[in-house]
Amino acid sequence: MRVQRLPARARYDRATLEAILDESFVGHVATVLDGTPIVIPTMYARVGDRLYIHGSTGSRMLRALQAGATACVEVTLLDGLVLARSAFHHSMNYRSVVAYGTFEMVHGDEKVRAMEALIERIESGRWARVRQPNRKELAATTIMSIPLSEASAKVRTGMPIEEPSDLDWPVWAGEIPLTLTRGTPAEDDAGMAARAFSR
Amino acid sequence: MRVQRLPARARYDRATLEAILDESFVGHVATVLDGTPIVIPTMYARVGDRLYIHGSTGSRMLRALQAGATACVEVTLLDGLVLARSAFHHSMNYRSVVAYGTFEMVHGDEKVRAMEALIERIESGRWARVRQPNRKELAATTIMSIPLSEASAKVRTGMPIEEPSDLDWPVWAGEIPLTLTRGTPAEDDAGMAARAFSR
Repeated sequence: MRVQRLPARARYDRATLEAILDESFVGHVATVLDGTPIVIPTMYARVGDRLYIHGSTGSRMLRALQAGATACVEVTLLDGLVLARSAFHHSMNYRSVVAYGTFEMVHGDEKVRAMEALIERIESGRWARVRQPNRKELAATTIMSIPLSEASAKVRTGMPIEEPSDLDWPVWAGEIPLTLTRGTPAEDDAGMAARAFSR
Repeated sequence: MRVQRLPARARYDRATLEAILDESFVGHVATVLDGTPIVIPTMYARVGDRLYIHGSTGSRMLRALQAGATACVEVTLLDGLVLARSAFHHSMNYRSVVAYGTFEMVHGDEKVRAMEALIERIESGRWARVRQPNRKELAATTIMSIPLSEASAKVRTGMPIEEPSDLDWPVWAGEIPLTLTRGTPAEDDAGMAARAFSR
């Protein structure tokens, strides 16, 4: 779909920002660990104006975040490859969010609600159907949240920028859309009784 | 495809690491800027044992990297959602690489070769068909590289871990594969002569 002739990479409104966060599955969490920048991919879920990540209580990064290390979280959806007539103007279409802040530990009911949100991101309605976390599992899971008060979005859409003098260059130019597609589910055959249930 | 019953997240050999880097399009570059961690998405290309990123000469992050700031680059391919019978064991299948190091400025012929690699990542054979960068464009483009000597890969494949006592829990469990799929190319109609050419 041709959105506009020239790409726009402006900051967007809250709804756009939240839509990006709610579509992607992987967040890239950066912090400083022993003086060295580190960035790791992680599952996350947005609830209201906070982003929740989870991890093992043994994670060095989560321990650093717990100790108050400042952090940056980036989420990017790759929407297309942008092929220009000049090498210089090749690009990608994407929607991304970057949030800065400090993570806080999440406890009690908020922790369970965050776990619910993480499961619901994978499949809507699933939380009610799976075995709920027990005391031991809750203790082994660290949930932390970061506010979205210092978050902004960046979006590029549309066709390549071209120099006017390149417009008759004899090469195909345009956008190749990219979409993260769900394939055919592969059922785990470890469960006997589970076989009677299908999606 | 059932790779193995239990997920493996080991470090892999060089070929696996390079295959991950050569399949993904977006790298997540983290560094420390004015005392704050920052992570941004960027196009990249691997050539031999180095990773090349490009950007505008005006980028604050590239200027920090140019000044010798230590960096971390992470690349992640999301391969599937892993649905377990317990909330606790839900997961994702992925292949990721994390590389630590310091970026170096790239000049001269190596810079042009890196630009070629970036274009070839988008479409094989394209570099020879597009208008080559001119002196002004070369000057406006910063290319930097980071060695892959401090890089490692992490991979999760296969089915969910389950507690034996959960195996008869009455819910579907398994993997929903995710693939980044190329859609129908949308041609830019700005070029008159270009219309005669098709992919």
